[in-house]
Amino acid sequence: MSKSIVLVSGGMDSLVCAGIAHEEGHELHFLHMDYGQKTSRRERKSFDDIADFYHVPQKHRKVIDMNFLRQIGGSSLTDESITVKNYAGDSDVIPDSYVPFRNTIILSLAVSWAEAMTANTLYIGANHEDSPGYPDCRPSYYEAFNKVIKEGTKAADIKVLTPVIHMKKKDIVLKGKELEVPFELSWSCYKSSSKACGKCDSCALRLRGFKEAGMIDPIDYL
Amino acid sequence: MSKSIVLVSGGMDSLVCAGIAHEEGHELHFLHMDYGQKTSRRERKSFDDIADFYHVPQKHRKVIDMNFLRQIGGSSLTDESITVKNYAGDSDVIPDSYVPFRNTIILSLAVSWAEAMTANTLYIGANHEDSPGYPDCRPSYYEAFNKVIKEGTKAADIKVLTPVIHMKKKDIVLKGKELEVPFELSWSCYKSSSKACGKCDSCALRLRGFKEAGMIDPIDYL
Repeated sequence: MSKSIVLVSGGMDSLVCAGIAHEEGHELHFLHMDYGQKTSRRERKSFDDIADFYHVPQKHRKVIDMNFLRQIGGSSLTDESITVKNYAGDSDVIPDSYVPFRNTIILSLAVSWAEAMTANTLYIGANHEDSPGYPDCRPSYYEAFNKVIKEGTKAADIKVLTPVIHMKKKDIVLKGKELEVPFELSWSCYKSSSKACGKCDSCALRLRGFKEAGMIDPIDYL
Repeated sequence: MSKSIVLVSGGMDSLVCAGIAHEEGHELHFLHMDYGQKTSRRERKSFDDIADFYHVPQKHRKVIDMNFLRQIGGSSLTDESITVKNYAGDSDVIPDSYVPFRNTIILSLAVSWAEAMTANTLYIGANHEDSPGYPDCRPSYYEAFNKVIKEGTKAADIKVLTPVIHMKKKDIVLKGKELEVPFELSWSCYKSSSKACGKCDSCALRLRGFKEAGMIDPIDYL
């Protein structure tokens, strides 16, 4: 049984990735990044709830404190002096919720863990179709990153997989339905931690995905 | 005056990189990683001494606490249950002081800072000739990483430079001499923090470099 790491933010895309990795029969290891975002605690709860759902033992869960990102700054998610703005959801503009090079930092840590415990696959719920503004959600970025893994590791047989990268949010919802993932345990809102705001970029994308899939989002909205 | 980040560990290779970046007339920004290694405090002192030497103001110095690497493990530098072993210095064996994918983690953070403050160049003292055992010291690794920067950043005009990658330690010493870098302020030893041990992998390489360059290493050894 091969080991696999799934980057589980607690959001819908990573939840569906977990469902895919589960279906493919890997020994699941869940990785969560707490980078001090405003909804950090709520996302952590979703991470644990999803891990419980897939029977991932505590020793296979890892939460990395990314608070050191605050020292770098440049993003509304980690810099409290910047307010999170709203976006239409599919703008070509790079949102100010962008943490410079964040995915590379996250992936590097994940690969380090993968190499330390000899996992071969790393699932990340990157999604290009609905996030054209994020440069590190592009398929070409992941191709380049996999080359870096090949060049920069001892084992060189670790691969980052992005199974939902080409899917529209609607298709992610439908894939999750097919795999019977627990959407009710996930969290996507950037702004609120009690009920989802329904208005931020992330909520807007999620709601549209459910709507287009003809499904009701089971989480509570304000 | 273009901004440049130099990754200054406090060792000889990064010192010479700082000298090169200084000579090329960049506005220098120094970055240091404190990842909880045994000689952490001593290396930090070298970092500050070298920054003072090159008149890098406090606001252009950044020290990132990398203690979270301990959560990942797999290296004698960060895992206290593993003792640092000695190496001949030019073995093809990957040393157990290897932190999985460490350079990628460091570079990712550096690129994040570079993007946040619009620096264009990033100097790192990676050295292939004397470290064939480290996969992420290979030139091909840096080519791949620069591709990731191009794909994964907004600005896409940040480039990692490795000016000493093809040099033997002897040539690094000679380059440093030419640039009049303050070798006496640098620190390379993995094991000791008062006087250098003279025996660890890093000391052995350094001493051989000075010897082959026909120079006396100005730091104290046990």
